[in-house]
Amino acid sequence: MAADVEVGDYRDRDELLRFAKGCDVVTFDHEHVPPDHLRALVDSGAVVRPGPEALLFAQDKRAMRERLGELGLPVPRWSADPDGLPRPYVAKAVRGGYDGRGVWFVEPGEPLPDVEILVEERVPLARELAAVVARRPSGEVREWPVVETVQSDGICVEVISPAPGLAAQRAAEARTIARTIAESLGVVGVLAVELFETAEGLVVNELAMRPHNSAHWTIEGARTSQFEQHVRAVLDWPLGDTAAVAPWTVMVNVLGGPATDLAASLPATLAADPGVHVHLYGKGARPGRKLGHVTVTGDDLDSLRARARRAADALSGGGG
Amino acid sequence: MAADVEVGDYRDRDELLRFAKGCDVVTFDHEHVPPDHLRALVDSGAVVRPGPEALLFAQDKRAMRERLGELGLPVPRWSADPDGLPRPYVAKAVRGGYDGRGVWFVEPGEPLPDVEILVEERVPLARELAAVVARRPSGEVREWPVVETVQSDGICVEVISPAPGLAAQRAAEARTIARTIAESLGVVGVLAVELFETAEGLVVNELAMRPHNSAHWTIEGARTSQFEQHVRAVLDWPLGDTAAVAPWTVMVNVLGGPATDLAASLPATLAADPGVHVHLYGKGARPGRKLGHVTVTGDDLDSLRARARRAADALSGGGG
Repeated sequence: MAADVEVGDYRDRDELLRFAKGCDVVTFDHEHVPPDHLRALVDSGAVVRPGPEALLFAQDKRAMRERLGELGLPVPRWSADPDGLPRPYVAKAVRGGYDGRGVWFVEPGEPLPDVEILVEERVPLARELAAVVARRPSGEVREWPVVETVQSDGICVEVISPAPGLAAQRAAEARTIARTIAESLGVVGVLAVELFETAEGLVVNELAMRPHNSAHWTIEGARTSQFEQHVRAVLDWPLGDTAAVAPWTVMVNVLGGPATDLAASLPATLAADPGVHVHLYGKGARPGRKLGHVTVTGDDLDSLRARARRAADALSGGGG
Repeated sequence: MAADVEVGDYRDRDELLRFAKGCDVVTFDHEHVPPDHLRALVDSGAVVRPGPEALLFAQDKRAMRERLGELGLPVPRWSADPDGLPRPYVAKAVRGGYDGRGVWFVEPGEPLPDVEILVEERVPLARELAAVVARRPSGEVREWPVVETVQSDGICVEVISPAPGLAAQRAAEARTIARTIAESLGVVGVLAVELFETAEGLVVNELAMRPHNSAHWTIEGARTSQFEQHVRAVLDWPLGDTAAVAPWTVMVNVLGGPATDLAASLPATLAADPGVHVHLYGKGARPGRKLGHVTVTGDDLDSLRARARRAADALSGGGG
């Protein structure tokens, strides 16, 4: 909720500078604001949280890989040199990727994409996890339960909180990795750390420094949602309790499918399941695009997963 | 959340008519819109929910008492004639009262207020309860758990959900009363029925046809909040699950006290209790005015009550 809303273009530096003049704190809901603009904001006296120095590690995958390596955190074998690793490998755009865009699986002999890339080993992962925390400038850090993020074609389709069957020690390790990154990089606000779980342990995949899809479940499933927590963190206010309100919470993304008007099937979806929470973002439908999500909380995981999937499928028109 | 917001004066009939032209449904968050304006809206083709015929019973206490009596529902002994009952009694303004305003305890020989009143026996009550339901035009009704509303000087200061120690049969009776009123009066949207619990049983005190203070606890404490439910109901959408998310939820109102800037003590209040949910309404501070509320959910009722009270007192500056 906001008393005032101003709509503008984050790529327009003058507009940003004018907007920031009226703000106690400036923050983000994506990482694609040009670093030069952020530095201009800081130079103008604006309080930008997270700051450009921290945000860089969510914008530039090479900087992130280097820094995490220096910190001794587990990362995949990687190289800035496309010939630095044996193929097949994963090529990643250094900047600008999201939702499976900017990631390529490269076989021997295949051409490389024509953007700045780094290359990584293909990690033999069992599943993907996310450890999400929030940190405020005065140092307080709070962690939500570690979740499993179920992927399909490089897009997160489902989040289960807490990650089913995750050993307590490994969950603690995931939270420690996220806390270490937040503190070492000086992150302010929400930090989501995407992790691969392998037979040998955890490996850091990606970072996001903002409210993130892997923590949308916190809106209904945790005492404090990631959105409230992000605002508290960037204002340097005390952080809220991150405990879950139910044994299980399942979030399923509503991806663009056959349906063009998702709201049309909303009444039927709500009638079929009075306990489902539907969030539609009002974005234009495009195949595979994240158009919304549904969340259910409760005691029986299998039933929750089925209910969330059913509601998301009904909205997208039969499986996105 | 709304895509558009228009600010105007509900007492200005022309403004109302112009505003309603762009609306699928018009609804309320208080009952003080003049009935003539509502009828003009309906005559102009606007869909007004709840309709003026239903809302009348939340606007006019005499009409409400007469109608509930016809329905055979339990009401206090009352009279439209100030000499129709022995004193001491309670005099109530027929229209316009709220938060203890428009209610007088009248001893023998005392003068009566100079407004249109009805008089009622003083009910020897043990405590006050509220049964809150929502109904949509196609008939579906859903009930939240029955709550206890703790009053001080005619103002609700605390709501406990569910009402502690309430016999299952009496809770069912309270829900049945609320459902009967909603169906018999054709209420659409949220209906709050304030009840006296006496040694002999339940007695209806007041009605409200809108999201109501006695159900603010549903924001964090129930699967579906009264605000979402009201919107679903007036749109004739399927209603959401009204189950509680925790064994107990306690809401304490933040009443105007010594503090003039409530936000100033917010960081300290949040730091003292990371699990408390604070809602400040941005209204000017005035002694006894409802300026916000705090909510906590959990397992131990005594501790929840103490925590909510502590947070509310800290915000209002030491007890409103």
